[in-house]
Amino acid sequence: MANDKKFVEAITSMEEDFAQWYTDVVKKAELVDYSSVKGCMVIKPAGYAIWENIQKELDTRFKATGVENVYMPMFIPESLLQVEKDHVEGFAPEVAWVTHGGLEPLQERMCVRPTSETLFCDFYAKDIHSHRDLPRLYNQWCSVVRWEKTTRPFLRSREFLWQEGHTAHATAQEAEERTIQMLNLYADFCEEVLAMPVVRGKKTDKEKFAGAESTYTIEALMHDGKALQSGTSHNFGDGFAKAFGIQYADKENKLQYVHQTSWGMTTRLIGAIIMVHGDNSGLVLPPKIAPTQVMIIPIQQKKEGVLEKSYALKDELFNAGFRVKVDDTDKSPGWKFSEAEMRGIPVRVEIGPKDIEANQCVVVRRDTREKTVVSLEQLETKVREILDTMQKELLERARDHREAHTYQALNYDEFKETLETKPGFVKAMWCGEEACENQIKEDTSATSRCMPFSQETIASKCVCCGKDAKKLVYWGKAY
Amino acid sequence: MANDKKFVEAITSMEEDFAQWYTDVVKKAELVDYSSVKGCMVIKPAGYAIWENIQKELDTRFKATGVENVYMPMFIPESLLQVEKDHVEGFAPEVAWVTHGGLEPLQERMCVRPTSETLFCDFYAKDIHSHRDLPRLYNQWCSVVRWEKTTRPFLRSREFLWQEGHTAHATAQEAEERTIQMLNLYADFCEEVLAMPVVRGKKTDKEKFAGAESTYTIEALMHDGKALQSGTSHNFGDGFAKAFGIQYADKENKLQYVHQTSWGMTTRLIGAIIMVHGDNSGLVLPPKIAPTQVMIIPIQQKKEGVLEKSYALKDELFNAGFRVKVDDTDKSPGWKFSEAEMRGIPVRVEIGPKDIEANQCVVVRRDTREKTVVSLEQLETKVREILDTMQKELLERARDHREAHTYQALNYDEFKETLETKPGFVKAMWCGEEACENQIKEDTSATSRCMPFSQETIASKCVCCGKDAKKLVYWGKAY
Repeated sequence: MANDKKFVEAITSMEEDFAQWYTDVVKKAELVDYSSVKGCMVIKPAGYAIWENIQKELDTRFKATGVENVYMPMFIPESLLQVEKDHVEGFAPEVAWVTHGGLEPLQERMCVRPTSETLFCDFYAKDIHSHRDLPRLYNQWCSVVRWEKTTRPFLRSREFLWQEGHTAHATAQEAEERTIQMLNLYADFCEEVLAMPVVRGKKTDKEKFAGAESTYTIEALMHDGKALQSGTSHNFGDGFAKAFGIQYADKENKLQYVHQTSWGMTTRLIGAIIMVHGDNSGLVLPPKIAPTQVMIIPIQQKKEGVLEKSYALKDELFNAGFRVKVDDTDKSPGWKFSEAEMRGIPVRVEIGPKDIEANQCVVVRRDTREKTVVSLEQLETKVREILDTMQKELLERARDHREAHTYQALNYDEFKETLETKPGFVKAMWCGEEACENQIKEDTSATSRCMPFSQETIASKCVCCGKDAKKLVYWGKAY
Repeated sequence: MANDKKFVEAITSMEEDFAQWYTDVVKKAELVDYSSVKGCMVIKPAGYAIWENIQKELDTRFKATGVENVYMPMFIPESLLQVEKDHVEGFAPEVAWVTHGGLEPLQERMCVRPTSETLFCDFYAKDIHSHRDLPRLYNQWCSVVRWEKTTRPFLRSREFLWQEGHTAHATAQEAEERTIQMLNLYADFCEEVLAMPVVRGKKTDKEKFAGAESTYTIEALMHDGKALQSGTSHNFGDGFAKAFGIQYADKENKLQYVHQTSWGMTTRLIGAIIMVHGDNSGLVLPPKIAPTQVMIIPIQQKKEGVLEKSYALKDELFNAGFRVKVDDTDKSPGWKFSEAEMRGIPVRVEIGPKDIEANQCVVVRRDTREKTVVSLEQLETKVREILDTMQKELLERARDHREAHTYQALNYDEFKETLETKPGFVKAMWCGEEACENQIKEDTSATSRCMPFSQETIASKCVCCGKDAKKLVYWGKAY
């Protein structure tokens, strides 16, 4: 299959250069293109359709927990951004500033939202009066802007798409419960839909969100052994409420401050899908998130009956609930095979005159390349079986990969050597001091990814300073 | 019902002050709140849920015609905005300028997109090479910014949500067909889903979009007799293609310019729904777009069995496919009735101990206030019947209202008098000269809304200058 080779050769192998492989997949699978706006991306139909599926699934899960969608302005007046001290320090250095509206300079400059805590707080301060108004469980789908110096499609760009949930509660306990609930919702979504295992845990103070009391995170391991923070959930306590004056009258008519949370997931997840499941033929999409699950490729499509049969199979599979297309372009079958592979379509169905005569077709599974000859009566059953199995096995394979690349270190030499020679997570004990995190970052460029919910005691002393250990931490180099 | 009155008295009657009535409805139905960002709005859950339904329905209709969704950057470098002359003249005076990224001034300032023709063109110029790449049928859902001086929620705000479709075609004919196809899609959507009749037509050159060869529009008539432009579809011919160098190799391998269209609908539609269907008790939502179609209101809800029965009815109606809620808050029934009315919920179901005993409930239709006692076995059938009838009758009533407020004028005195004394559309003949449009605007503040597709010849001379008439035009004062 000459065409096939030619097409595939166009991408760098991941063993040779993982970063280049990633860029090649992003481009050749037509997920993204670079734009004339530096650091911003054009999300093309194949990429945006993945995001739409992510949105649909997350939005349904949010709403099932009582969350409602709203829309806040995209601008934040400078004075509003400055209300909460830690928050402004964290974000001011990386925002885009609007200084002119129409032909005139603004009286006060505004930034394009890097995140919307300040806008939600400003709104809640006016909108919440009584305990009857609580909880407020709001979310918005929008884009945000952070003026990054170095950018990469999906992983780090000056503008990206996300959802940001912002809730307000009567009590500290309720806020903490919501923070954890949303983190678990994210983790379940990653595992059940994206087939991507994650470590659930808490960020250290050094790594937490600007203005948060505590930040929870899910951390996934990419194929190259680097970690990717895939979703975060923050508990603000009443810090923002005090800064913005968000109070409600409780049942005894006493004024109380609300307790708040926020949580977000972004188009970064598409980068995670690529780096967890992709291979040297391109993208591999978990069936549950794949915009097209089955691509039917007619062989000798000009022969009588081939296209008709292809469309008939498409209708049959569509009616059975699958997302299915026929590639009836005038490219060669080999080219179409490689394209379907590059785009990560879970199942391809090949059907030509001889197959039709024999009342069968060839079914190929994307990740394993397993080919099966299937009788046309059995096609629907077989496709369902492959999609289910593939979804399950992608998760298992990713979990195996993560397990195989999760190490532990009992002393600092071992720790440094592991980080230098074995890409992956390193589990090690930590004293709780930021000084050790700084030391470790300087020595290894690794950061604390999280203090996992499932704590173990693998040693009694901090791996860095040797003082009494407080927590087990997952360390790693990260995107 | 004392509570009921109190709640309703809080809104101004539309006969007394239509503008204030509109503002009151927007606030009391909790669709929108003002924000600390001047001219920008906070879209609250009740408002955003309407937008989500609009999105869902339009998006499905777009995709059925082959349209795919993408996402372009929100920024436009100044040099890119300036490529097409008419376009930059139309938009430059009303854009917001970003001049600083992080702590540093930008080398070139960028505006926040007021519309994305220039970004799509820049992308198409790199992305389209061959006739095989055509047509390109892209759409994006996003927010845009136009630095308006005076703003009103939904109708005119500095930031608003919309969709913008941008297509590229091989031939002028195909582009024209797509322009008309999308206009008709918009019109059908307004009539079938929003129960809002529209006049379909073409804008005069004076009123067309900056950079377009021709602009088509749908114009709706609000309750106060003012027109609202509700959706537009533009044919750019090859003007943008020549300015941006968007060429493809045709089947003979000759380079040709593409022909382009764009088309958009915005959150303005929510304003239209309010002003077409609303009444002095608040919002009236057409059943097909209502986030909640049925509100069940328990009477004496503390009595045994009342809440249980309410939830059981909710489940039953939910399973029958309706969007239904129970108002189980601790407010009085009268208050709940007014709230459900204010929010425009098409059907309310009242159920109390006596009803339960008699195996019945009271069903009230929002627009007519018609009350029916319905046996519980018949509830599902009755609700379906009411929703269907209401959807149909809202459209009929709005059409009747429009017909009753569409006048014609055969000479200029009649024209001016009609515009002064009878709010509505005025049909009159026009010579085709911009001078007459300017004169009419100066004399009456009315503008040409469109040259309707259904042309008639009601006179032979232009209503303004008396020269030979070329077109019948709908004139009116507009939002």
